[in-house]
Amino acid sequence: MNSPRLAEAINAKGFTAAAGFRIVAVQPGSAEVSLACRPDLLQFFGHFHGGVIAALADQAAGIAVTSSLPSGKIGVTVEIKVNFLSPADGSELVARAKTLKMSGSIGVATVEVFSKNETSETLCAFCTATMRALDLPAEFR
Amino acid sequence: MNSPRLAEAINAKGFTAAAGFRIVAVQPGSAEVSLACRPDLLQFFGHFHGGVIAALADQAAGIAVTSSLPSGKIGVTVEIKVNFLSPADGSELVARAKTLKMSGSIGVATVEVFSKNETSETLCAFCTATMRALDLPAEFR
Amino acid sequence: MNSPRLAEAINAKGFTAAAGFRIVAVQPGSAEVSLACRPDLLQFFGHFHGGVIAALADQAAGIAVTSSLPSGKIGVTVEIKVNFLSPADGSELVARAKTLKMSGSIGVATVEVFSKNETSETLCAFCTATMRALDLPAEFR
Amino acid sequence: MNSPRLAEAINAKGFTAAAGFRIVAVQPGSAEVSLACRPDLLQFFGHFHGGVIAALADQAAGIAVTSSLPSGKIGVTVEIKVNFLSPADGSELVARAKTLKMSGSIGVATVEVFSKNETSETLCAFCTATMRALDLPAEFR
Repeated sequence: MNSPRLAEAINAKGFTAAAGFRIVAVQPGSAEVSLACRPDLLQFFGHFHGGVIAALADQAAGIAVTSSLPSGKIGVTVEIKVNFLSPADGSELVARAKTLKMSGSIGVATVEVFSKNETSETLCAFCTATMRALDLPAEFR
Repeated sequence: MNSPRLAEAINAKGFTAAAGFRIVAVQPGSAEVSLACRPDLLQFFGHFHGGVIAALADQAAGIAVTSSLPSGKIGVTVEIKVNFLSPADGSELVARAKTLKMSGSIGVATVEVFSKNETSETLCAFCTATMRALDLPAEFR
Repeated sequence: MNSPRLAEAINAKGFTAAAGFRIVAVQPGSAEVSLACRPDLLQFFGHFHGGVIAALADQAAGIAVTSSLPSGKIGVTVEIKVNFLSPADGSELVARAKTLKMSGSIGVATVEVFSKNETSETLCAFCTATMRALDLPAEFR
Repeated sequence: MNSPRLAEAINAKGFTAAAGFRIVAVQPGSAEVSLACRPDLLQFFGHFHGGVIAALADQAAGIAVTSSLPSGKIGVTVEIKVNFLSPADGSELVARAKTLKMSGSIGVATVEVFSKNETSETLCAFCTATMRALDLPAEFR
């Protein structure tokens, strides 16, 4: 099984590092990833941009699926679908992903994304993602 | 009908401004938006992050739908679905959106996202988006 | 609020009546609909056809959303998305839908579809559906 | 490459045979499937049921993808997504599918579904489908 270090390594690069994605919890088949509000992550109305929400959901789904794969495999996204349910206007987002099913090399995860402020959290988006398991290229092991 | 200035105003804020989204063309019912490669937009393997691709597709779809709405209305995303078809490893992405249908306050758009390098472009993602038309709040008019 | 009789009326027509869709339970915001196996509902391999599974999920989602609408309104499907997770090879299908969110005239529901045999049930499909509330035409009231 | 006979064999069973699905054209990577109106295919308002539309789109996508696979392989649906764009109130539906991309064992197709009457056709649904290639079990070859 993949160690949580792979999830941290995935998260420590590129967009997710620059945006400040933070892995809160990882277990085989589930993951929680959070993101604090920052002006460069928002859209026109001052809420988190839908694409940033999609990125957070995608990251959580990928980590949830990857965490249940054998060592040396990584889950990559085949397709992702996000419904936006209410304004993502909190001080932080939290995405909670769980793997619904692994079948051969295909995994399907659902992700709930919550918009949090100091006293409450609201479901602001719901996502399904289809992943496939690839061999992790040698240079990334 | 909304003027192209609304599209520019939408694009000039928050994440899309920070990431460098550039509106290439807008017409009622269609839009083209591009994004140059930058290290803080990539994922683990060094390709554009799926969430960034989703953001670009969402932006293009929103502008395509908004551009065909009456002045004072804006399209916001109900749901977005992206299939990732090939590695987004070019020096630039271009998203081309067109409105398939407006029906009452609901609009549906498709978006093709291409990964470009100096000599070619490859379809790297395909997206459908459902939008709904809202009254633009007074402070944004 | 709509009475369960509207759900029964919706179900008693056309395809759903012919195929034998059966409403097991309805409450505001949730619904359970079942379907017994029949040769004319299957696909090439002898499992329930994916389109029949989609129809069952769609019906359950529509009833779940409609049941929470004011009298005189009905939910119609904007879009539906189904992931097929395992072979639907049981003697019966059961779809369990719940409304995630109503926001203005837009509702989003998730549906779990189980393939049942005498001793067990297996999650065979997962669906999200976006609905919009319409005024029920006078001739259907 | 699979022969068109496989497409005919897939179509000649179960739900698709009972409902009257008719293959109009098949080529590697594309397919057209039609369905005449019948009372047992409709929904509450007297239009084609959304699930029947999804079944037709799924069938066309599966045939389009399968037709480009090597002999002995068949495409099965991983997930399907349908946007309903206008009432499917014609005397016939026609679904036109094309493969956007095959990548390893995964194929993605788009499908346009038209509602036809004597003098015109209207785009009533748009679908994307993700398929995966399986070995056709020996008993079906």
